[in-house]
Amino acid sequence: MSERLLPTLADVRTAARRIAPHVHRTPVMRSRALDAIAGASLYFKCENLQRVGAFKMRGATNAIFSLSDADASRGVATHSSGNHAQAVALAAKLRGIDAHVVMPENAPAVKRAAVAGYGARIVTCVSTLAAREQTLAEVVEATGATAIHPYDDALVIAGQGTAALEFLEQEPELEVLITPLGGGGLLSGTTLAASSQGSALRVLGAEPAGADDAHRSLTSGVRQPCLNPETVADGLRTSLGELPFRILREHEVEVRLVEEDAIVDAMRLVWERVKLVIEPSSAVPVATAIFDHGAELRGARVGIVLSGGNVDLGALLFGSRLGT
Amino acid sequence: MSERLLPTLADVRTAARRIAPHVHRTPVMRSRALDAIAGASLYFKCENLQRVGAFKMRGATNAIFSLSDADASRGVATHSSGNHAQAVALAAKLRGIDAHVVMPENAPAVKRAAVAGYGARIVTCVSTLAAREQTLAEVVEATGATAIHPYDDALVIAGQGTAALEFLEQEPELEVLITPLGGGGLLSGTTLAASSQGSALRVLGAEPAGADDAHRSLTSGVRQPCLNPETVADGLRTSLGELPFRILREHEVEVRLVEEDAIVDAMRLVWERVKLVIEPSSAVPVATAIFDHGAELRGARVGIVLSGGNVDLGALLFGSRLGT
Repeated sequence: MSERLLPTLADVRTAARRIAPHVHRTPVMRSRALDAIAGASLYFKCENLQRVGAFKMRGATNAIFSLSDADASRGVATHSSGNHAQAVALAAKLRGIDAHVVMPENAPAVKRAAVAGYGARIVTCVSTLAAREQTLAEVVEATGATAIHPYDDALVIAGQGTAALEFLEQEPELEVLITPLGGGGLLSGTTLAASSQGSALRVLGAEPAGADDAHRSLTSGVRQPCLNPETVADGLRTSLGELPFRILREHEVEVRLVEEDAIVDAMRLVWERVKLVIEPSSAVPVATAIFDHGAELRGARVGIVLSGGNVDLGALLFGSRLGT
Repeated sequence: MSERLLPTLADVRTAARRIAPHVHRTPVMRSRALDAIAGASLYFKCENLQRVGAFKMRGATNAIFSLSDADASRGVATHSSGNHAQAVALAAKLRGIDAHVVMPENAPAVKRAAVAGYGARIVTCVSTLAAREQTLAEVVEATGATAIHPYDDALVIAGQGTAALEFLEQEPELEVLITPLGGGGLLSGTTLAASSQGSALRVLGAEPAGADDAHRSLTSGVRQPCLNPETVADGLRTSLGELPFRILREHEVEVRLVEEDAIVDAMRLVWERVKLVIEPSSAVPVATAIFDHGAELRGARVGIVLSGGNVDLGALLFGSRLGT
């Protein structure tokens, strides 16, 4: 395998210009209640209000709008049942090209409907990673489409970094930036964006203790797979990608592990006190900030990327008809 | 009973200046997904992001900051187990005076804690309306405190109207304004604020079909009580107040009735697609806009006041630990 080039801060800035016409500039929110609980000044970058309901729109849009017209004409493809699938589908629609999304046969109907709603072609396969990868390879072979990886891709990473770039324009006085850590696309892009601030800005990754492969990888210096992840934060069950691993190592980014109870408690606090619907993955950095046992963030201006808001409420809440 | 003076548009403008230092200027949000469903351009005024999580902060603050120093020194009182209680507690704290809140003994612990958290004194009584009113009268007698009614009060109504005044500054092109309709404080204040726009702006009240006393009152021309209300929109189970009744009659405000299923469906759509936590009462005007069977709002610019976001998620959602 050849050594792939790492994206840079300049790539993040280029991405920001490229995707600006197609993505939302999301607001930053505050909460007195959560500030009081955290003993710090928290700033929430609302990527749950981004198009498709997640920051994934940024990376997919950057990758898809970077394609040459010739490549673009053959379409794009990915395998995902999550936010990345919707992001690829919508970004392809905006560019006016085909998107092929490989989804496991057991993917929730609501997710299939969302992807189909953006006009993508859904290719169904059995629900193993091997089957998904093989099916994607077949789609690429048959169509000439460009595969868009959800995080192990320099253009996707640069795109995800635009959330932090925008955040720092909106709140230039931040002292700490925390994002969720799964495949590492958002955190590594954020690290690149934050590098403009030098040591004045500390970047932390928040990872579920039940899916701690990135922490193990960065501690050991050898990338470790995420086997049998057990966490409610379904977006963070993926293994750290190679490019993110190299970026996070190079910048010596610290990882904080978060227990399941803290994730659920933090999610509830954001729903109840900030009035924002966030998905469990987004609650992981919130938990890092508000259950800061070492008190090392006390009094600091802490920026948190609320990465997404896609939760299937059906069975959880509305199935009960609110108790009526 | 003497004929009480009705508040005016000028009173709403005065209220806006009076409360500005103490309340949030809440944002207006949009949603492509809901626009597509409604076939109209929807604008959401996010009073769920207001202090205490509801527009009630506006009216309580206007009433409490209107008191003379002598009256204020004897404190304020109310009986409520809802958002008005928290609003009176916080506004009194901001003015630096005592608040006495009469709450029924079966009020949820989370609501008692919220009121106590703002420093109010809680006076517990049995859970009948008669007991609450008598206990409030005793508190007023004993302390000299001023009772702040949640909606049948000219200063409270003027304060609630500031949400619409602000909304029209933010979105001057609105053609329709819809608010929930319970006691009528928000809708009558909105009507006053909207009167500056003349016939260019139509105001609608959205009332649960299961608590339709305002609709019956305005249709018959005689104020009717709300007996045995059956609706998930717990904030709208109160009876229309006398002052709101007179204002809504004078301005010939139309009322739209909303069925329970539509309320729950609209609430879910806002949570899932707009990513905002709203309480059931706020979903009633949303339902009016998106399940607009007469199609009379088609293509219009429709402003909706999302009145509050206080939902006790405990038993509903997080009791399940998200299924883990």
